[in-house]
Amino acid sequence: MKKAWILGVLLGLAVPGWVMAASGDDAIEYRQGLFRALKWNFSDMGAMIQERKPFDAARFAQEADRLAALAPMLGEGFIKGSEKSETVPTRAASELWYQRDRFDQLMQQLEEKTAALAEAAKHEDRDGLRPYFGQVAQACKACHDRYRERD
Amino acid sequence: MKKAWILGVLLGLAVPGWVMAASGDDAIEYRQGLFRALKWNFSDMGAMIQERKPFDAARFAQEADRLAALAPMLGEGFIKGSEKSETVPTRAASELWYQRDRFDQLMQQLEEKTAALAEAAKHEDRDGLRPYFGQVAQACKACHDRYRERD
Repeated sequence: MKKAWILGVLLGLAVPGWVMAASGDDAIEYRQGLFRALKWNFSDMGAMIQERKPFDAARFAQEADRLAALAPMLGEGFIKGSEKSETVPTRAASELWYQRDRFDQLMQQLEEKTAALAEAAKHEDRDGLRPYFGQVAQACKACHDRYRERD
Repeated sequence: MKKAWILGVLLGLAVPGWVMAASGDDAIEYRQGLFRALKWNFSDMGAMIQERKPFDAARFAQEADRLAALAPMLGEGFIKGSEKSETVPTRAASELWYQRDRFDQLMQQLEEKTAALAEAAKHEDRDGLRPYFGQVAQACKACHDRYRERD
């Protein structure tokens, strides 16, 4: 499918309808993809912060940059029509959709905390980074507690 | 699970083993998440380039920035141990693993073409952006043709 629509773009041909407009399922898969990418970087940073692996300043700084780049993309995936899906399970809580201002504030906090961590990672050592990292973790948790359904 | 390990990070407690080191499954989910995020942005840009929706220069430029930010993350997800999985299907072709230099060259091309598109999106109009967008599409396709198994 992906190959088909990329080829379609190349040739300027008609492409499948699901490419023409983002569907609710696309949005759920998009935000879930971003969460996976955030987790991948965040968990490696956590291993360094918790001294479960050696601290690599360059690697930590790159991963911090990735969090700061990914965080602003998240909110876009929570679009109208992606509240629920028959085909793609989502744990987005119903409250999210009628408390959108609060949700957007929490997303903004995540952006700010990841940006602060990325900046700190340019000069701080592991001990100096721990509080910045903790604030990013708290920003994740604050939103999960309110707007992610329990397992 | 995610909540548990974030809380673990906050409290400095032991966290589940799967957080402590990236597993092959984590890597597959990471790279698949990135592909979804790339597709989300790329397909919207394709709709504008193909005039299936109105061209919004600011939106296109933001999406081009997202592609340029996501592209360099992709290669990291193709780590040893993520060639195959019992639990997470992957379409990564076996050739990828013993033609890694060639694969890395294609990843580098994707980085360069997405960076060029993001730069062009700052000043070019839709017609001016079409060739840059086409080169990104070709960079995607070049790698899919070699290293992604057919549907």
